Amino acid sequence: MNHVEVCFSPADYPLYRENFELVVVIDVLRATSAICTALENGVQRIKPVASVTEAEQWKAQGHIGAAERNGEIVAGFDLGNSPIAYIERKEELAGKSVVLTTTNGTKAIDIASEKETVVIGALNNLNALCQWLLEQNQNVLILASGWKDKFNLEDTICAGAIADQLIDSGRYKADEDSTIAAKFIYRSARDNMFAFLRASSHRRRLRRLNLNEDVKYCLTPNNLTTIPILKDGYLVRLEDGIGISNKAETKAEA
Amino acid sequence: MNHVEVCFSPADYPLYRENFELVVVIDVLRATSAICTALENGVQRIKPVASVTEAEQWKAQGHIGAAERNGEIVAGFDLGNSPIAYIERKEELAGKSVVLTTTNGTKAIDIASEKETVVIGALNNLNALCQWLLEQNQNVLILASGWKDKFNLEDTICAGAIADQLIDSGRYKADEDSTIAAKFIYRSARDNMFAFLRASSHRRRLRRLNLNEDVKYCLTPNNLTTIPILKDGYLVRLEDGIGISNKAETKAEA
Repeated sequence: MNHVEVCFSPADYPLYRENFELVVVIDVLRATSAICTALENGVQRIKPVASVTEAEQWKAQGHIGAAERNGEIVAGFDLGNSPIAYIERKEELAGKSVVLTTTNGTKAIDIASEKETVVIGALNNLNALCQWLLEQNQNVLILASGWKDKFNLEDTICAGAIADQLIDSGRYKADEDSTIAAKFIYRSARDNMFAFLRASSHRRRLRRLNLNEDVKYCLTPNNLTTIPILKDGYLVRLEDGIGISNKAETKAEA
Repeated sequence: MNHVEVCFSPADYPLYRENFELVVVIDVLRATSAICTALENGVQRIKPVASVTEAEQWKAQGHIGAAERNGEIVAGFDLGNSPIAYIERKEELAGKSVVLTTTNGTKAIDIASEKETVVIGALNNLNALCQWLLEQNQNVLILASGWKDKFNLEDTICAGAIADQLIDSGRYKADEDSTIAAKFIYRSARDNMFAFLRASSHRRRLRRLNLNEDVKYCLTPNNLTTIPILKDGYLVRLEDGIGISNKAETKAEA
């Protein structure tokens, strides 16, 4: 039987990484929700980078620049990780290459990029992702981006939702207590995630920034079907990535 | 208002340590349950050490040796971290100094020993500990020992129980999502912890070792009133530690 396990943060990744060649990266508020939304709405590819400096370099080379730190768009950029912004600017962004750096999500993608297969999860693409994962018949590690290496609730809920579907299929099992806890928290929260997360640290952070519409969007399951996958250093739609390996060759150029 | 926060494992401690001078160390299965039990049952003091080699040195110098790794007593020792063993051997151990090393708990104590005040928590001494913490009027960091730096359920439940009591007093608040999650998991588990933990990784580990009686004992709240405190490198009963500082001077000798 295959394993599905949940890792609460990039800091914990070295403790969990062994025995997995397929990693799902999650940053519900808001990086991975934004990535799924951007690719579903016509962005051609997204280059995730860890630092603002790298984002500036790729932007100078012609990419649309998107950068977020601490919930706000970085000075010098006019796009961040608001999924709604990618919908509003759909025509302008169609077919374009975007470079993206965020506080937590792109760091987690960077860490996971050593693996054969890296896909992007959010509540928005939950069912489509789980259906695809079940077809792969591989061990699955779900890596929550957390908040600056700390555990967070919203990523744990989403990780628990994925683990729950895979385990419910009867073809996956979980051994780690983190996975048991994530699944339990998801089942407790699923009927009213917005209320459940009211007290969470990141909700408070985003409320201060008037981002409640983004939060509501990110907590809406299954309004998207796109599965972003990392191929040659870029996140692309699964169907566009066929035949391209994840070797991150373009990294060296940056 | 004071803060109470939960740190899920020693690996996460650097992310949470700031702003706390009082740390509660928890290792429900079984190190901190055993420490509370041993001191309540007459052991004079316990020297927590991180390695088996150190334990052997202190044993050679006249301490009673106790060492556990992966749930089992280490070869060359006849005591580990079974709380029931400390009750069964009460007469023999009365007034004695014990040196103790365990897989997770003594490592967490070692990491926390940089702080002004380090006390030991378990479900066994829950109410007595919380009452004392409320009298201190300080920020409280609850450090779960976890399992080899990973999150575990039983320590999280106990940490959540302590956070819940402090927050319920109206004099403490929690900002971290880890604390919100721990409190939530505790409230869900408290009416039947034994059943709740059935699937947990450490329960499975201990079941293989036929330690169900120990597990039942460790999951019994408030059968003890002793609060162990770290003073000059030793864990002693709170009342025996008055006037002694936590400077861990004896560490240098080891």
